[in-house]
Amino acid sequence: MEIRTLIEHARGDVPSDILLRNARVVDVLGGEIVTSDVAIYRSRIVGLGTYDATETIDLGGAYVAPGFIDAHVHIESAMVPPGEYARTVAPLGTTTVVTDPHEIANVLGLDGIRYMFESAKYGPLSMYVMLSACVPASDLATSGAVLHWYDLASLRSDPWVLGLAEVMNFPGVITRDDGVLDKLRSFAGAAIDGHAPRLGGRALQAYVAAGIQSDHECTTPEEAREKLRLGMTIFIREGSVARNLSALLPLVTPANHHRMCFCTDDRQPSDLLDRGHIDGMIRAAIDGGLDPLMAIRMATWNAASHFRLWDRGAVTPGRRADLVVFDDLRAPRPRLVFRGGRLVARDGAMAVEPPPGEPRRLRGTVNVNWDAVDFRVPAEGRRARVIGFVEGDLATREVIEEIPSRDGVALSNPEGDLLKIAVVERHLGSGATGKGFVSGLGLRRGALASSVAHDHHNIIVAGADDESMRTATRRVAALQGGWVVADGRAVLAEVPLPIAGLMSADPLPRVRKQIDAVDAAARALGTRVASPCMALSFLGLEVIPALKLTDKGLVDVERFQLVPLWVS
Amino acid sequence: MEIRTLIEHARGDVPSDILLRNARVVDVLGGEIVTSDVAIYRSRIVGLGTYDATETIDLGGAYVAPGFIDAHVHIESAMVPPGEYARTVAPLGTTTVVTDPHEIANVLGLDGIRYMFESAKYGPLSMYVMLSACVPASDLATSGAVLHWYDLASLRSDPWVLGLAEVMNFPGVITRDDGVLDKLRSFAGAAIDGHAPRLGGRALQAYVAAGIQSDHECTTPEEAREKLRLGMTIFIREGSVARNLSALLPLVTPANHHRMCFCTDDRQPSDLLDRGHIDGMIRAAIDGGLDPLMAIRMATWNAASHFRLWDRGAVTPGRRADLVVFDDLRAPRPRLVFRGGRLVARDGAMAVEPPPGEPRRLRGTVNVNWDAVDFRVPAEGRRARVIGFVEGDLATREVIEEIPSRDGVALSNPEGDLLKIAVVERHLGSGATGKGFVSGLGLRRGALASSVAHDHHNIIVAGADDESMRTATRRVAALQGGWVVADGRAVLAEVPLPIAGLMSADPLPRVRKQIDAVDAAARALGTRVASPCMALSFLGLEVIPALKLTDKGLVDVERFQLVPLWVS
Repeated sequence: MEIRTLIEHARGDVPSDILLRNARVVDVLGGEIVTSDVAIYRSRIVGLGTYDATETIDLGGAYVAPGFIDAHVHIESAMVPPGEYARTVAPLGTTTVVTDPHEIANVLGLDGIRYMFESAKYGPLSMYVMLSACVPASDLATSGAVLHWYDLASLRSDPWVLGLAEVMNFPGVITRDDGVLDKLRSFAGAAIDGHAPRLGGRALQAYVAAGIQSDHECTTPEEAREKLRLGMTIFIREGSVARNLSALLPLVTPANHHRMCFCTDDRQPSDLLDRGHIDGMIRAAIDGGLDPLMAIRMATWNAASHFRLWDRGAVTPGRRADLVVFDDLRAPRPRLVFRGGRLVARDGAMAVEPPPGEPRRLRGTVNVNWDAVDFRVPAEGRRARVIGFVEGDLATREVIEEIPSRDGVALSNPEGDLLKIAVVERHLGSGATGKGFVSGLGLRRGALASSVAHDHHNIIVAGADDESMRTATRRVAALQGGWVVADGRAVLAEVPLPIAGLMSADPLPRVRKQIDAVDAAARALGTRVASPCMALSFLGLEVIPALKLTDKGLVDVERFQLVPLWVS
Repeated sequence: MEIRTLIEHARGDVPSDILLRNARVVDVLGGEIVTSDVAIYRSRIVGLGTYDATETIDLGGAYVAPGFIDAHVHIESAMVPPGEYARTVAPLGTTTVVTDPHEIANVLGLDGIRYMFESAKYGPLSMYVMLSACVPASDLATSGAVLHWYDLASLRSDPWVLGLAEVMNFPGVITRDDGVLDKLRSFAGAAIDGHAPRLGGRALQAYVAAGIQSDHECTTPEEAREKLRLGMTIFIREGSVARNLSALLPLVTPANHHRMCFCTDDRQPSDLLDRGHIDGMIRAAIDGGLDPLMAIRMATWNAASHFRLWDRGAVTPGRRADLVVFDDLRAPRPRLVFRGGRLVARDGAMAVEPPPGEPRRLRGTVNVNWDAVDFRVPAEGRRARVIGFVEGDLATREVIEEIPSRDGVALSNPEGDLLKIAVVERHLGSGATGKGFVSGLGLRRGALASSVAHDHHNIIVAGADDESMRTATRRVAALQGGWVVADGRAVLAEVPLPIAGLMSADPLPRVRKQIDAVDAAARALGTRVASPCMALSFLGLEVIPALKLTDKGLVDVERFQLVPLWVS
């Protein structure tokens, strides 16, 4: 806003738009509660104190805090695009998110990132982007795109780009891989996020010395303390799978809390709807004993200042009027949410309709060469490497099992919890199909298929018989992406994910119902896994141990190479 | 440094240059003391822990803190240029200063600022510059230069320029003066320092809304708290005249200390030599009850992060090896000082000789049209406005006094503590001379003259008789600047200040002796004022109340206009 205008309104020479009367302002800079009115003109806070305004809202002593900030989130995990995501989290008090569009980037590259930008525009949320640093995650799978340093650099000057997203390839940093270092060099001076689970000692020092500034993978106070001492900002994460808040809370003190933020990383629809977003983390932290002012500061100013978003994060004149109003300082539940001076949510629901917009047309991303796809596995041995699924763990075990066969063809054995699993390449139409066996999913019949398969996002399918697998896979393709449960020739339930095969075009509550139906259908087929399609989507993730499957075949993650299915 | 090199050294793949063994590292991020070795390679800290290094220095358990940072200083007040200033403060642990070259800019404009840059180069101190926002301070005096927004903007992209210096013209901000707003607009996105003594309420809100981010003029906790709440960083100042540390210390808490820094603003040679620099402020703050880790954090990380100097302010891998070693955490006295990995000072003395360098040739700045200078004051009335000097106060009183006269010429009356005072324009050679009377200086005979006369820096002279005044003024001109004490035709003592008429070419301890000699000579002439030439240098400062003298005449500061000498 023109400073002349700001000065006029701050002086009270002309009436402002909105006056929030009888507020208790959460002063995250001074660490105090300040009783004051707050004047807003257009997108900005213009003054604390009594002012003339066109509209007065009496808050009756409610608290006013800066809008909450998620320091690191993959919106795709919510299975809806940014516009719909914003409709979900804005009523929860989130006004800014820093995203890494890592999933869609693996499918559609820069086009995918641009789609995320466009889908966020004119919505109730500021979406900033950290550019995905590891697309693809490895060479052991076929992804839809490769992003080199020069691809990422081409977006660096976009006003919504803050820097380089989590540098997951920490071995590449430490061993000075040129491709990795060139990305770091391209973002010198910008924000660079880290991802270094359990890294410590000299390796961590090298990672930090390379310019990496944050970490959201800490699981213990000891790990976080070491990273803090070395200068990293700690993003405390509370995702759907990885939940670190209660473990890290004992570390937080008045002396160090200014170096910590909150983030959700990956949250599925049901978690967002049931547990909330950053607001839920604030409440959980306060429940866990953290001073409310410290918790709110971590969720606002700390993230803003880490990412150098100087126009937000505090309730002071000249800053954006991103404001959250709530009644209970010990359990903040946003009653009113303002973003850029506009009331966007009230009592947990949107108060404005985002413009309908014409979503950018994305090309279909499920491109399968069916002529080359064949789920039969020739019995080239007796004993095979089987992926051992473990509930609640992204890591698998490698199990050597005897595989039944008939007429030279290896067979699943659903009664013995041995299913066939396949990954069908869906980006290039190459027909490449990795095949193997999985135990632990517990399907007695039928099949599950998913176009979400971290991080390459080919179609991953597991089933009791080839026909069910074919039905499920073909339905995923017909939907241009989705989760599908099939039995024989029948499709039992599905979650259409037509946007890059990752996200739904439906409202998030409807997506949640579809997921519930898919889970129920899978349970009816015998599985006891809590979220079977989600579980399936991680069985292709070749950078997390121990044995995974990609379109190129079985990957021994410890050795980081392809291995044969048969051992004898 | 190239990140490949940093990573190599952080991993310990190759030996580093220096290992500081048995250190207790002051972790200003985590707020802890960490026992660790510290490895340095060239200009950088590369690791905390045990490393091979060419040179090992056993610290025997001494503390290692980041180098100290002065957040706001006018180096000219030390009466030596940046190179010599650095030789004084580097042994005190200061490794970075943020300067406003306001005084030399008033004399020499951009050339003066460039001179400061050059004089700082290759020295033991990082000197960053905030560009002087108010040159000249007003139109009521003739300065040597005028700096418009486009002059300042021409230096904005210099790597050592951080932004716009203290915006002293706060009325200009609040009343939306175009010249002031254009300066603010030119530095949007950069650091912009404030200067707003006693400003509060809506006027302060307008000042903050305009984008001004700091204030170093707070004298009470209430004033500082209001500014803090509105988002300003508070620079606690401890200058030679204005000393605010003990008054503001009660405000500092664990919750808000991260929003405060230390600065010295203006320190004369004797203060630097006797009371130290930022190190002295740290000790004084700890003596006053502040936690040592909070005090050190304010002196390091807080200033670095306020000015977005992300390469310093903490002892972490990848950051500059600007380090201070001391033995007593409760009274830090730097034993070793490293700047950029180089040991620059040991036991309070320089450990390296700065390169001699050829100082930039500056033009002579004392250009007086003697033909037009005449100290006689026609007796055009009986009673006149007299400047009433008050010891220890930059503000004066306006006193109406009867002025003796003879033959139509007004006379001083030293016995009655009434001296003549004049300001002789020295930039343009215009001959403009403002004349009047001053009480409170107490000279019985002789005269004092100074080419330092805030902020226009014309020659200001006060004396018992015209001949002494002429001798002193002519000697100042012959020296191309200085402080001079004269009696009749004799020069009794002098401090040559040939650099812009503001700074000496001598080492600071010698300058201090010269000042002592000048003070002693002035005392012998009858004054009881502690620092008579310094006192004189503020009698021309037309922006501080109540009655001041410039080359244009007497200024009534409250009415902010020139007023006649005679009232009847």
